[in-house]
Amino acid sequence: MSAVLALSGGVGGAKLVLGLSAVLDQGDLAVAVNTADDFEHLGLHVSPDLDTMLYTLAGLSDPVRGWGRADESWNFMSALGTLGGETWFALGDRDLAIHVERTRRLRAGESLTSIVAHMAARLDVAVRIVPITDSPVRTVVHTRDDGPLPFQDYFVRHRCAPVVTAISFAGAAEARPSPAFAAAIGDPELRVVVVAPSNPWLSIDPILAIPGVRRALEGVRVPVVAVSPIIHGLAVKGPTAKIMRELGMEPTSSAIARHYNGLIDGLVIDESDAADADRIGIPVKVARTLMNDLDDRRHLARAVLAFAETLAGTANSA
Amino acid sequence: MSAVLALSGGVGGAKLVLGLSAVLDQGDLAVAVNTADDFEHLGLHVSPDLDTMLYTLAGLSDPVRGWGRADESWNFMSALGTLGGETWFALGDRDLAIHVERTRRLRAGESLTSIVAHMAARLDVAVRIVPITDSPVRTVVHTRDDGPLPFQDYFVRHRCAPVVTAISFAGAAEARPSPAFAAAIGDPELRVVVVAPSNPWLSIDPILAIPGVRRALEGVRVPVVAVSPIIHGLAVKGPTAKIMRELGMEPTSSAIARHYNGLIDGLVIDESDAADADRIGIPVKVARTLMNDLDDRRHLARAVLAFAETLAGTANSA
Repeated sequence: MSAVLALSGGVGGAKLVLGLSAVLDQGDLAVAVNTADDFEHLGLHVSPDLDTMLYTLAGLSDPVRGWGRADESWNFMSALGTLGGETWFALGDRDLAIHVERTRRLRAGESLTSIVAHMAARLDVAVRIVPITDSPVRTVVHTRDDGPLPFQDYFVRHRCAPVVTAISFAGAAEARPSPAFAAAIGDPELRVVVVAPSNPWLSIDPILAIPGVRRALEGVRVPVVAVSPIIHGLAVKGPTAKIMRELGMEPTSSAIARHYNGLIDGLVIDESDAADADRIGIPVKVARTLMNDLDDRRHLARAVLAFAETLAGTANSA
Repeated sequence: MSAVLALSGGVGGAKLVLGLSAVLDQGDLAVAVNTADDFEHLGLHVSPDLDTMLYTLAGLSDPVRGWGRADESWNFMSALGTLGGETWFALGDRDLAIHVERTRRLRAGESLTSIVAHMAARLDVAVRIVPITDSPVRTVVHTRDDGPLPFQDYFVRHRCAPVVTAISFAGAAEARPSPAFAAAIGDPELRVVVVAPSNPWLSIDPILAIPGVRRALEGVRVPVVAVSPIIHGLAVKGPTAKIMRELGMEPTSSAIARHYNGLIDGLVIDESDAADADRIGIPVKVARTLMNDLDDRRHLARAVLAFAETLAGTANSA
């Protein structure tokens, strides 16, 4: 049903997926989105990466803040603070609707997959947004000084400050890929798998941790291409470079390629790292990976798809 | 602990309670608030009468709309509608905070009484706001043409249009008064019980339907005084007069007195109904009961308390 399957976390991945959606025919793109950042907050089921993807593709995301909705108001949070409620995780008034409605439907027994599909349709999003699983998988960030932290505690409350020693995914061993994700991997029309420039440890690894997913992706007879989230030793956004150092790696695209060893057939790296291309050990495409505007996103999407074309029929298609 | 105990539903009752709080010393007033209008909506526990009371006493209520908070925004509802959620019951962005926080705390095992007390303290409300019960009691409006309707379906969705044949309170027989309500009735400092000009059938009857409450109130050795919600055959707000006619009564203060027969020792009626005073059969005080501003509320509160003084030591103190 879809020629291109992207794997993605939040903001950075959503930018590339928006670019892919702009250059592909409608219906040609599915995106499997990390749900291990999901958490229960204020009694609501919050799905940060799914919502970032949905808002980005629906044209509702805030371009400056980088998360949540544009034209947002914060009267709920203000009133909640006055009542003594928890305010460390900001939920905008418009954004709150998706959490309340999702929570209500989950409690009524509907699957996350079905809820996301229905909301995407309501928002006129043609890309098939697929939660990686309908089971509860939760990222735990193990830190040197604060012990194990639930992901949002690490990410939002502690602003990624604690030193990371390991990352695990509670519930992953018992989880199953959502039927829609499994179908997307097994889709006979599939031509390419794109690993978005999301944080490999926090956003992509939980996808690969679900039993059967990594093996299924390694077994697809089409190119699997990743876009490196590292540009000249830095991450565009978020703690990727910091975490790599804390886990004992240099923050380079070579390290990204090693991390994805066996999974990917090629890596797209930024033009500022062109000198490293020969050291990476797998086919590399040099492109501008910084995505400031829609043109950048489209340009990178075209580069990724063209690169995958050159790999088709050779890599990983045994 | 409190010299005055008021029984109240929503808007009209809250106005009188605000007046009482303005003329009494701090700490001298407790109000038992109807919870049978409470309902589960969007997965949230909504308590309309408690919130109206809290917002009114905290100076947060909207003076024009008559419900909800002043300076409110509606971005949540707008976004919810776009996602396909239910929008027939309007929840403002600021108002939403109380529902989300209350629901979270109820699910964590806290009692409604404790939650309301904590929120009132956060909002600097000195009046002791007491839910009549921590048990689920739900008003059911039986209608001629639409069968039994949950209260908010009748009140908001159907705008009180269906003809009422009876009213019942699901769960009342199994409910117990909240410990705080029972303590307020049994308070040795109690000097007067005021039945606010709320709808007797929809707002006060559920209070009296909780086992033991009516008998306890009939047994208090202090005056019980009601303020009639009927002014010259009309209700100031809401469906009181309409419901009285549908239940086969003329909408008069005499009918209100008959409804409260055995419970109250005196009735405050509006000056426009002064000619009826002699026909009511119990002690009557004529006052201006329409409360347009805070002066009206204070004036009526003083009249009610002065009237109760005249009844002390005579009525109901056997």
